[in-house]
Amino acid sequence: MIIDGKGLSNQLDSGMKAEVKALRAAGIEPKLVVIIVGHDPASQIYVRNKHRKAIKLGITSIIERRPEDFSQADLLALIEQYNQDESVHGILVQLPLPKQIDESAVIRAIDLKKDVDGFSPENVGKLFSNSDEHYSVSCTPKGIMTMLTHYDIDPADKHAVIVGDSNIVGRPMGALLLNAGATVTYTHILTQDLSSYTRTADILIVATGVAHLIKATDIKPGATVIDVGMNRDENGKLVGDVDYDHAKTVAGAITPVPGGVGPMTITSLMQQTLELTKLANRKILETVR
Amino acid sequence: MIIDGKGLSNQLDSGMKAEVKALRAAGIEPKLVVIIVGHDPASQIYVRNKHRKAIKLGITSIIERRPEDFSQADLLALIEQYNQDESVHGILVQLPLPKQIDESAVIRAIDLKKDVDGFSPENVGKLFSNSDEHYSVSCTPKGIMTMLTHYDIDPADKHAVIVGDSNIVGRPMGALLLNAGATVTYTHILTQDLSSYTRTADILIVATGVAHLIKATDIKPGATVIDVGMNRDENGKLVGDVDYDHAKTVAGAITPVPGGVGPMTITSLMQQTLELTKLANRKILETVR
Repeated sequence: MIIDGKGLSNQLDSGMKAEVKALRAAGIEPKLVVIIVGHDPASQIYVRNKHRKAIKLGITSIIERRPEDFSQADLLALIEQYNQDESVHGILVQLPLPKQIDESAVIRAIDLKKDVDGFSPENVGKLFSNSDEHYSVSCTPKGIMTMLTHYDIDPADKHAVIVGDSNIVGRPMGALLLNAGATVTYTHILTQDLSSYTRTADILIVATGVAHLIKATDIKPGATVIDVGMNRDENGKLVGDVDYDHAKTVAGAITPVPGGVGPMTITSLMQQTLELTKLANRKILETVR
Repeated sequence: MIIDGKGLSNQLDSGMKAEVKALRAAGIEPKLVVIIVGHDPASQIYVRNKHRKAIKLGITSIIERRPEDFSQADLLALIEQYNQDESVHGILVQLPLPKQIDESAVIRAIDLKKDVDGFSPENVGKLFSNSDEHYSVSCTPKGIMTMLTHYDIDPADKHAVIVGDSNIVGRPMGALLLNAGATVTYTHILTQDLSSYTRTADILIVATGVAHLIKATDIKPGATVIDVGMNRDENGKLVGDVDYDHAKTVAGAITPVPGGVGPMTITSLMQQTLELTKLANRKILETVR
């Protein structure tokens, strides 16, 4: 089975469009601000794609572009301006940032109620503690959970193996799966005999940035394989961290690259923007109902 | 090898005593406030042991006892009083709390700079993101890391298996081990075929509250086994979650119960109280040097 992230993303769009329409009818304008500093080419593409999706759904999207030498103080001031602006529901600072800027200081500066990327320590802490309060979650892992749910793949009592323990994908992914009842193994660059772990995975999440790291022989027959990688091969073709052509003959379900995890990341960002919009306007929405 | 937590704890006491003496000579009085609501018998013992250890080290210890029917509003007001009190460096609210009180609201109320138990979402988030900023950590996992370091057991590239994924022990323990370079597997009540995981563990952490859950056959020969359990058996004897008498013949290193993890938990609390005292008095201490 091929897990069609692109198709699912399109399918979820119509629900979100209707939601935005209803919000606007209630006088609420969902608004996302994306701040990009410098000219990293991949970041430019990501920001453009987020902007396009927001426009498509009817979400107001503001892009704030700043030059490569923009100072940390000025960036913090810009964030604070949007923290104070009650018309804004989500603030995203595109990473990576130029080296003169301390990423963790920037992440902490974003108002928790507008942290649409879920990177602030308090949101991360709530995720890792399986809090019953509201928290935002990193968009890629959130999108993967949405795919699993949609394809009726229940992580409870399964063995989920995470390859790559980044703060943006691997770590929050493991926390979400643990919260959903999976047994979770985190592997990474220091892991000895990686395939001894991946071969026991019922759900295998690969997010390393190493093209074709995971071969068919690393996969348990019937497993669900989620490939977060986006790499260019020697011919300039976009490929994942999984050797898809061979892996798909072993896996029970697998995401392609492109068209798998990528579209769902942006969908999660939009879902989370709407969630934060609704939370900020709880009282108005209660009156409407 | 028997990992002697009690002995190590006593050994660390003398260093901490000297540290307290130096702080007091600089006009700084380390001060810990422990708040206990109700009359849970185990909590009474824990609070008494923490108080005794603090007194032994020269740390000023205040115990605030409140009745079982104490209200959440009054508890939050008491915490806020100590948040404002600059002479106090650590605030600990003994868990569990009576059912009329929302634990997470109480934990969030403690000033991050005084959260000596490391339970606040922001501290948890920093731990789980391997932040390079300061954060407090739950005391039992912190104590276990101190033991591993002291006994020259380096988690890097080892397989660490956590049995029991509580927010107080299992989850932060896994994060500390992951941050130290281990491959980490979280197992719990839903895990199928638990021993298939435990038998591959180079470092096995057991924190379930189930007496003698882990048998000798569940342990990889030569593994390090850390037993966080504190259970009473049918004869009223204190026993761990590991069948110690048999397990010690298989394990390479093992903690006894009592005398293993327990004393190190209180030692961590004292270390963390001193860390927060020094952070709060950075400027004075810089002048002294």
